[in-house]
Amino acid sequence: MSKPSIPSGTRDFLPIEMQKRNFIFDTIKKYFHLYGFVQIETPAIENLTTLTGKYGDEGDQLLFKVLNSRIHENKDKEKLLEEFKLSLEKSRNSEKLTERALRYDLTVPFARYVVQHRNDITFPFKRYQIQPVWRADRPQKGRYREFFQCDADIIGSDSLLNEVQLIQLMGDVYAALGIPTTIKLNNRKILSGIAEIIHEKEKIVDITVAIDKLDKIGADGVNKELLEKGINKNAIEKLQPLIEFKGNAIEKVDFLKKLLAKSEIGLKGIEEIEYIFNSGINAKNLELDITLARGLNYYTGSIIEVKANAGTLSSSITGGGRYDDLTGIFGMPNVSGVGISFGIDRIFDVMNDLNLFEGKLGTTAPVKVLFLNLGDAEANLSLQLVTELRKANISADVYPDKAKENKQFDYAVKLNIPFICMVRDANSTSHELKNIQTKERWDLSLEEIKKKLE
Amino acid sequence: MSKPSIPSGTRDFLPIEMQKRNFIFDTIKKYFHLYGFVQIETPAIENLTTLTGKYGDEGDQLLFKVLNSRIHENKDKEKLLEEFKLSLEKSRNSEKLTERALRYDLTVPFARYVVQHRNDITFPFKRYQIQPVWRADRPQKGRYREFFQCDADIIGSDSLLNEVQLIQLMGDVYAALGIPTTIKLNNRKILSGIAEIIHEKEKIVDITVAIDKLDKIGADGVNKELLEKGINKNAIEKLQPLIEFKGNAIEKVDFLKKLLAKSEIGLKGIEEIEYIFNSGINAKNLELDITLARGLNYYTGSIIEVKANAGTLSSSITGGGRYDDLTGIFGMPNVSGVGISFGIDRIFDVMNDLNLFEGKLGTTAPVKVLFLNLGDAEANLSLQLVTELRKANISADVYPDKAKENKQFDYAVKLNIPFICMVRDANSTSHELKNIQTKERWDLSLEEIKKKLE
Repeated sequence: MSKPSIPSGTRDFLPIEMQKRNFIFDTIKKYFHLYGFVQIETPAIENLTTLTGKYGDEGDQLLFKVLNSRIHENKDKEKLLEEFKLSLEKSRNSEKLTERALRYDLTVPFARYVVQHRNDITFPFKRYQIQPVWRADRPQKGRYREFFQCDADIIGSDSLLNEVQLIQLMGDVYAALGIPTTIKLNNRKILSGIAEIIHEKEKIVDITVAIDKLDKIGADGVNKELLEKGINKNAIEKLQPLIEFKGNAIEKVDFLKKLLAKSEIGLKGIEEIEYIFNSGINAKNLELDITLARGLNYYTGSIIEVKANAGTLSSSITGGGRYDDLTGIFGMPNVSGVGISFGIDRIFDVMNDLNLFEGKLGTTAPVKVLFLNLGDAEANLSLQLVTELRKANISADVYPDKAKENKQFDYAVKLNIPFICMVRDANSTSHELKNIQTKERWDLSLEEIKKKLE
Repeated sequence: MSKPSIPSGTRDFLPIEMQKRNFIFDTIKKYFHLYGFVQIETPAIENLTTLTGKYGDEGDQLLFKVLNSRIHENKDKEKLLEEFKLSLEKSRNSEKLTERALRYDLTVPFARYVVQHRNDITFPFKRYQIQPVWRADRPQKGRYREFFQCDADIIGSDSLLNEVQLIQLMGDVYAALGIPTTIKLNNRKILSGIAEIIHEKEKIVDITVAIDKLDKIGADGVNKELLEKGINKNAIEKLQPLIEFKGNAIEKVDFLKKLLAKSEIGLKGIEEIEYIFNSGINAKNLELDITLARGLNYYTGSIIEVKANAGTLSSSITGGGRYDDLTGIFGMPNVSGVGISFGIDRIFDVMNDLNLFEGKLGTTAPVKVLFLNLGDAEANLSLQLVTELRKANISADVYPDKAKENKQFDYAVKLNIPFICMVRDANSTSHELKNIQTKERWDLSLEEIKKKLE
């Protein structure tokens, strides 16, 4: 028999990992609730028609498709074979083989949800959703094929107050988790304005993808890439002040106002950025970063990203932005939304790297007290005492087997259980309680045990 | 554009449904923790080799298989086609097409987990797991293709104290949920003993499947089915006292002792049942039911089932039992375990039918207070007040848009938000707070608002 294993890019979560993950989820949920977000869930399996074409060609390739069930029972096998052949030749899906796929993110299913349940929803609708998603990406360190997303969106309102609130929410969450962060803000309209003034409107994606790499490849690298993408030299020339600009947020805004003076959409983008900075927002680590271009496929206004400032992965741990027409793809146009997505796995890695879980998790012990099993009658009495402790909300257990006392004690030590109790006489009303760490011992009645453990 | 939809047998969960489901999950989790169970999670996608052959032929048919990714990029399309043809002809899987499937239950992945992580586990290991599973069953009322299981197992101990504890745990959970239940207990060894004394050992499955239907089809129906299955008339004759027996638990045990006097395994089963009933177990609604035969494929000792005593679906809401060799299938023999699985969806249906959520959920309101948006400066001040309230753990929000006051008020009413606050003057330090239900109004400072809402 071969050693059992799990598919590459997937994970088992051990109890200690669950405890850490739950700490992150509970912290984020606490703030979701304080900010008025309500929870929904959508199915893991969506119709392929819901998902395909929403994530670009690359995204379509990364969908995990579910084989139709009972295809073996199909009577017309010739036709099935023909279908499969065609699907291979034309690199397209065949409904005969697969009509469903695993969720790729939480945003498109949410858009589908909003359209499908529009009559049950009071807008503006603030929802959160914490569920796994699946992508057939090549697995590597920190990148998984099954991972959790944790999203909050506000849909049905184009007010920039929503951006302000989401930024504050992220600030609260990361303060509570103890992760030092920089929150970066940009606006798609500024990027559009830049493309407009250099007369390369249709190359906006290439331009922003190149500028996005400024940190990594430097100004020369960016210019080289722009040239390769067919941006003309004049346009690249015009971009230089932007690429080389250094200054604080106010100086940057002033600079952009001059640069984009002739672009209506560019000025609108600056106005939106200024609104957020002037809203009295409580976020000292908020920065304007005009090289930020993530998710350009569907963001139409604000673009938001949070970077952790330390750890071996100094990576993006939250991203988000505004999309003016997300539900349009499902036939419900003109509904503006803005949302963020916490990257749970990266947050987990950063907190481990920075040792941030320490002092936050409480005990890993499964119970507060373990009653040793010293015989049938004694175990039965132990069980009754344990039942009373549980009624008083004290977690407690009896060792199930009549094993050697040493073995049972070692079990308690291994699991970090702080107290053991020994019922040595099933007729007695007092029993020996021991603190494993301090080695203190007491002879106590049930009521006294309760008091000691509360 | 077609109306968006989800695959049949799957569901979206709206906020009110999430609230109810979370109430059930939280209640069960509370008792899992009091009883010393720790949480694990396993991936949704398992290798097909892990799952196939574990659930019988019918189960294999119900697996949702995941199509290998990037098969379009495979260069040898001829070979792929040939594979597909063979797989259709022989009704078998082809690794070229699918090597993975969605989790069918939590028990087999748990067995795989135990074997894979055996060196990290301290036995006896008490784990719980709450995750969705998928089955390509024909959807019908109360039966879904994607549904949650909620399992607790103790592995690495053959002590019957574990059964006792699991039964008490179920009793505690259902008392907390307010569902009236009957807990039914049987033992596979008693069923084996019965088959033995009527000399039909090899027909044990047919016999128990037939007896299991006693409630539904009556004694005559059971006898007819036994005959059809090829059980000889003598054997059926011998079964009659059992099928017709009526009496309480003690009488039933006495009767069985006589009936099974010559079957060693049968007597062992009775001994186990007696141990549980005499353990001082705190479960008045516990019954011996020798017709209970669920999960016969892998249970080797105790068989447990909880029925809800009311509601339109008077159905099984929890099932479980002991399996002496679950991890044997993955090469780790002789590890005994016992576990139960809460049927969340049925519990949800029963609680809805019996109106049991009433008074348990608290409010459906997303926040305690909504600040109306009466202008930019007023909204900015509102945001600052809201920030202070959240710091005091009071959920609060500002309406994002400068809509008409009536519209904003209606929004609060629709969402059952109990208080609204109106900042009409950005320079004032007191603001109007209103209780929507009682229509009371106050002019209050931030500190007074906090006190009122705490």
